[in-house]
Parts: sequence; C-alpha cells; structure tokens
Amino acid sequence: MLYNHLSINEQGHLALAGVDTVEMAEKYGTPLYLLDEMQIRTKCWTYVQSMRKHFPVGSTALYAGKALCFKQMYPILKQLGMGADVVSTGEIHTALEAGFPASMLVFHGNAKTDDDLRYALDKRVGWIVVDNPEELERLNELAGEKRACQKIMLRLTPGIDPHTFEAVSTGKVDSKFGLVIETGQALEVTGRALEMKNVELMGFHCHVGSQIFDSKPFLDAAGVMLSFMAEAKQKYGYNAQVLNLGGGIGVRYVESDPEEIDIDKVLSELSNYITNQCWRMKIFSPAIFLEPGRSIVADAGVTMYTVQSVKQIPGYKDYVIVDGGMTDNPRYALYGAKYTAIVANKADRPADFPCTLAGRCCESGDVIGENIALTRPERGDKVAVLTTGAYNYSMASNYNRFGRPAVVMVCQGEDRLVVRRETLEDLTRCDV
Amino acid sequence: MLYNHLSINEQGHLALAGVDTVEMAEKYGTPLYLLDEMQIRTKCWTYVQSMRKHFPVGSTALYAGKALCFKQMYPILKQLGMGADVVSTGEIHTALEAGFPASMLVFHGNAKTDDDLRYALDKRVGWIVVDNPEELERLNELAGEKRACQKIMLRLTPGIDPHTFEAVSTGKVDSKFGLVIETGQALEVTGRALEMKNVELMGFHCHVGSQIFDSKPFLDAAGVMLSFMAEAKQKYGYNAQVLNLGGGIGVRYVESDPEEIDIDKVLSELSNYITNQCWRMKIFSPAIFLEPGRSIVADAGVTMYTVQSVKQIPGYKDYVIVDGGMTDNPRYALYGAKYTAIVANKADRPADFPCTLAGRCCESGDVIGENIALTRPERGDKVAVLTTGAYNYSMASNYNRFGRPAVVMVCQGEDRLVVRRETLEDLTRCDV
Repeated sequence: MLYNHLSINEQGHLALAGVDTVEMAEKYGTPLYLLDEMQIRTKCWTYVQSMRKHFPVGSTALYAGKALCFKQMYPILKQLGMGADVVSTGEIHTALEAGFPASMLVFHGNAKTDDDLRYALDKRVGWIVVDNPEELERLNELAGEKRACQKIMLRLTPGIDPHTFEAVSTGKVDSKFGLVIETGQALEVTGRALEMKNVELMGFHCHVGSQIFDSKPFLDAAGVMLSFMAEAKQKYGYNAQVLNLGGGIGVRYVESDPEEIDIDKVLSELSNYITNQCWRMKIFSPAIFLEPGRSIVADAGVTMYTVQSVKQIPGYKDYVIVDGGMTDNPRYALYGAKYTAIVANKADRPADFPCTLAGRCCESGDVIGENIALTRPERGDKVAVLTTGAYNYSMASNYNRFGRPAVVMVCQGEDRLVVRRETLEDLTRCDV
Repeated sequence: MLYNHLSINEQGHLALAGVDTVEMAEKYGTPLYLLDEMQIRTKCWTYVQSMRKHFPVGSTALYAGKALCFKQMYPILKQLGMGADVVSTGEIHTALEAGFPASMLVFHGNAKTDDDLRYALDKRVGWIVVDNPEELERLNELAGEKRACQKIMLRLTPGIDPHTFEAVSTGKVDSKFGLVIETGQALEVTGRALEMKNVELMGFHCHVGSQIFDSKPFLDAAGVMLSFMAEAKQKYGYNAQVLNLGGGIGVRYVESDPEEIDIDKVLSELSNYITNQCWRMKIFSPAIFLEPGRSIVADAGVTMYTVQSVKQIPGYKDYVIVDGGMTDNPRYALYGAKYTAIVANKADRPADFPCTLAGRCCESGDVIGENIALTRPERGDKVAVLTTGAYNYSMASNYNRFGRPAVVMVCQGEDRLVVRRETLEDLTRCDV
C-alpha cells in the first residue's frame, strides 16, 4: 500500500483508517471523497511541532486552503494552532463562517480587486500578501479610507526553478506572481511600502513551486530571500520580521514517486541554514511562515467510484469506466497527473488487468489514469483512487452538469458528512 | 474583427451586437460572460433550415447542452424547433425545468448509472443513446420494471480520426465511447438490442470529434455508419430509421484559424453523399440527427475581465493580469487553446503590447493567452476575450473558492441576466 493508513480488511475490502471504503461508497453513494481526519491532524501537528522546535517565536504554519477548503477544516486548524493561507474572499468567508480568527488569515492572490481588498480590510484579515505595485497603491488608499493600518508582506519571485511541472512552478523570474528581485523591482517597491502610512510591511513571501521532494529548493529560496532582506536592511535600515517561504512539499501519488521528505528533518536543515545565513549577513533571524496545503491533505483522501462499464478493444486497449472523472479530479486532464487506483471490493485479488481508467464526461480527455493495472472489475464494483485529498474537490466543476460529490471524514471508526452532495436543484440555482 | 457581430462604437469601446461591452462590465461586474442572443438564434436557424432542406422528414438538429447549459437556452431551442442532446440528469433537469419537452431530449453518456437510467425513464426522455453492453442490459431490465419501451440508439465508434486535439477526438477505434465496429462488437450488440423487449432500436450514433473545418470527416463517418447499417440489414433484416452523426463543426478562436465551413453547403454535400450511398447499398435513407454545440454558441460569447495588474519583466516577458482565468475558462490550461483578446475600453487603439494574459488563480498555469498583443492596459481597464460562448461557463469551477461569473444575454440593444453571479453564501452552501 502506498500509505500506512490504508489496509485490506477481512472482507478483502480497502479500508481507510480502518473504515471500510466499500461500505462508505454504499452508504453515501458515488462518486465520493473520503478523508482520514487523523491523517490530516497528524500532518498538521507535525508542522506545528517542528516549527515550534526549529523556528523563532512568531513562526507559524498556515494551511493553504486552495488545496481543499470547506468549513470543517478550520476548527481542526484552530485547535492545532495553525493559521490559514486564503486566496479569495470565498476562502476568507469559509474560514470566518467556521469561527476561525481573521487575525490568523494570510490573504494571497495576484489579482486582488478593490472589492477583495475592502472585504479583507472590513473583516480585519491578519495579513495581506501584496503581489504587485498596483495592489500596494490601492491597498494603501483603501486602508486610509477605512483609517486602518494593514499588516502586509510583499510577494517576491526569487528566481528559483524547482524543476517541477511547468504549470505549478511559481518561483521563477518569469512568473505572473510577485515582484522580481533580479530586476530591482522588489527593492524599489519595498521602499515605497515602507513610506506608506496605511500599510505596515512585516516581511516577505515567496513560493517556489509544488511537488518538491528535497530540501534544496527551500534552502536556495531562503538564501535568495535573506540576501534580499540584507539588501533592504542596508538600503532602508529595515529589519523584516517575517520570512514566508510558502509551500511545496511533495506527496506520493504512485509507487514510483520519490520517498516523502521527513518534514522535521527539512525544517531542522532550513533552520540551521537560516540561522547561519542571518549571522553571516548580520540581519535579525526572522520568524518563519510556511504554507503547506497538499502535504497536509493529499494522502488523507481517497475517491470512491462505481464501475459502469468495462470496454475491451482487442488489439487496442481496455477501458474501465466509472461514474466520475475530470469533473471531480481534473488533474490528469490538466497535468497528466498520475494516480494509484484499486478495485476496493476486490482489494485482496491480483491487479492483473491493464487498462485506462476513464470517466463519465462527454470528452475523450476525461481520464483518471492511463496504463494502470486493476483487478478485472465489472459493473457495480467500487474503484478507489488514492491521494485525492488535495486539488480534487477544490478544483471540481459541474461540467456536463454533474453535481459535485459529497466529502465524508472518517475518524476512529466513525464517519461524518462534511460537504453534502450537490443536488439537481443546486445545479439550476443560479439560472434565472 | 473576428466576427461581424463585434464592432467598435463611438466611444472606442468594443460592442457586441451593438451593446457596449464596457457598460455591461460596469453594470454587472467582472468577470462576466456576455452572449449575443441573435447570433445563437441565427446559428440554430441555419441548422434547422438546412436540415429541413436537405434531409428526410424526422431529421432534427439537437443542441449539445454540454457546450453551454442554463435554463433560458431551452425556450430558444423549443421555439426554433430544435431538440437537445443531454449528457446528465443535471442537463435533463435543466431542460425540463425550462419547459422543454422530454420527448425532444436525446440522452448521451458513456457511464450512465442505474439512477441516471431510472431518472430518464421516469421523465420519459425521448431517446437514450446506449454506449455499452452493460448499459443496454440494465436499461432493458429497468425499462421492464417500469413497463416501458424505451427508444434507443447505439453509439458506435466508426474509427475516424479527424486529426484534431487528442482530447476532443472521440470517433477513433481506441476510445472510451461506444461500440467498436471494427471488432464486430457493434454488430453483435445490435443483434442483442433487437431481441430485447423493453428497448426499441431506432438507429445508430457516432461522434467524430471537435473543431472540424471540412466536410470530409463527416462524409467518412457517414460512409462507415451506412456500411454498418447495410451489414445490420443483411444480418438481421433490420432497417435503422435514424443516423445520428453527432457534432463537431469548428469555430474560429483566432485570426489564423481556418475559415468556418458553410453549414448549408456541408449538409447539402452530406445529403447527396448519404442518398447515393443508400441507393448503392440498397438501404432506406435514414432520418439524420446532428448535434451542434460549439458551433451554435461559441462565437456568441465574450468574456469581460478587469485588469488588476500589468507586470513587466525586462528581459523576460510582460503579463496582463485580470480578475478571472482558469476558473471561468479552463481551456488554455486543459488544451493550450488559443483566444483573441481586446482591451474593450481602448478598442480603437493599436494592439502593440505583446504580453501573456494571465488569471487570478494561485497557479502558474492559470493563463488565458500566451504571446498575444493588446493595447497597453492599466488597472481598471476591461479586457474582452472573444469566442467564449462554448465550454467556458459549462466547464467553470470554484477553484480557489472564486464564485462563478454571471451570464448576460444581449439582444437588440437590451441586456438581461440569464445566470446570476455566485455569492459567498453559494460557496459554502454544501459545507456541513
């Protein structure tokens, strides 16, 4: 098994945290997202503990809600002492509705509108990560109108390429995000921010990319950012209090993926490196923010489908067709992302049927996995796709007017609905 | 201009069917989908008229709702005498809610569940296009339980490759859709369908692919399908009443796209070819169904955005960043699809600013167009992206918890909301 919280029970069914996934599929219907709550809590706690151990007071782990956002995530984060990275008024609204403190929200985004900024100011969001000069000007004006002084960070592009998918590599110089260090823009805008009355510059943010399996890109990014902070200190006498290094720690989707990195070990390495660099550069050691998203929720998730058809085409290939697909998991269609799939009600039998696992959308590209091996299924069998906790529900669509699936959390033998399935009425809700 | 219904008005603004797009953006907010109703009606009418002229009685054009589905589309179709191709209970529900007759619905899908089939039977959907043997067995059983006899077509894969995008090419032998002619499966399942008591086989369906700019793939497909019908006649003495050739006629997204085909000319050619082939093969000339989607709505649509930031990176490239993106138009992220964009409030000025038009999602791949030329914009300017009527709203997501935009129809100088914008409350509606 790809992960320890997955097992095969006495019925030969796939179990998630001891809960029979086939029973869940029958109880709630398919397609269905299952989440192992303890797995999420354990991952959160690992970040919280390691950060307390290795980083200065004021450092904090912020859960990146874009990976998976629904109300019941936020009490878990609050209880464990995490903050949250939000990227829209929708995510802010979700967190606040769930009773999460606005002061623990860090608001990201490369295209915040005036309405977005007003909303964040009204709700007293803790920090706004300013992406570009236009946003900085507008935020300063709008905060002034509201007689507020908003804590901000500036998003910088450190020019690090983590050699990952093109689409999720965000720290390169050529990026739609942030202020470029290399061209001098970042330093100039820092000076402007320091002169503004209605914003208080707390530090800097960068995000290198996604699906990173070694510490090097993080050390490289920290190095570039600390050099920049030293430059800002020299030029403006400014001591940044916070360095936000974003997220990006990878998770395993298939057996051939690299081993996951030991988070505590990476943070320890990062801490030593930062301490040394700060000493060498004669700057204060900043509090560190990290923004894990995928690495918190991805492996907690399993998507359940029901097989509708098995299509064998002699001389070509065979298809297993299920009642979900790119509408609930667009990552193959978007990135050619790979997943591990198991016939959940035949999990104890050999997976000796090579096939393409395809979805129900009226689109050829609606595939969940090409050239995978399953136990030969038939109509009615349940297929589990693993590691779907991140960027599945959050990216889901109503393409073909399919309702989005329910999300169910399992914890210590119990199951509870955290997001209900969309109904037919939901689908025409906005139609005038 | 890419299309005749687009123009530049006295204010130098882009107008859609004479309506100022900048005014619409200001009135309804951005991002915003605009649709030219007369353009949609004209396209529908072209199909309806041409089909009446060229094909036998009983032939019909079915609008493929997967391209763009909301309630107010269906009264238009009904009025003009079109049927509708639906691919989910969600689309059936939408059509019926809008008062569209169930008998004019043709229900597609490669993974219909038992619940889907029961719903279609209960609602007395006119036709079900059966994709695979498992579905055929289940439909026959379920129709029996309901003492119904359901009109069906069988979906076949004619083995035609229209040399289009891999993801939207659906008529090849290696396809998740339909019964393969080449392997004998299609003929065998036809025999089974003819023996069943609770389904009535009316004919056959195929769909070659999308974005087709010449008649050849349609003639090729018709040729293969008619040969199959001749075989079915010879083997089972069965005369198919209907041949459904699907959709696939292309539209222009950029100036370098091929000229659009003359629908009347293609249908005339197709009609002659079918008549000749039927005569040659000694089979009855079937009624023809066609399923245009994109070619009905794509060019009627324009998406309006507001510029939030212009990011110039000397030595690299420049970005224009707007308040929408892959959440309202995922086609670049999915297929690298190209679009034409215009700064709508400066439409009379030269487009001499080469840039990448990027969206607001926290994802590098959130791009609307690479290497396009715009009039140099600034924060607050309105950008119009053309030809977004198809597969934009229908594929939209709430990724990053952004609400989906409103859809506004303009017609003879008037504008009306047909889909309202999603609110913050909508975004947490399903959260328990």
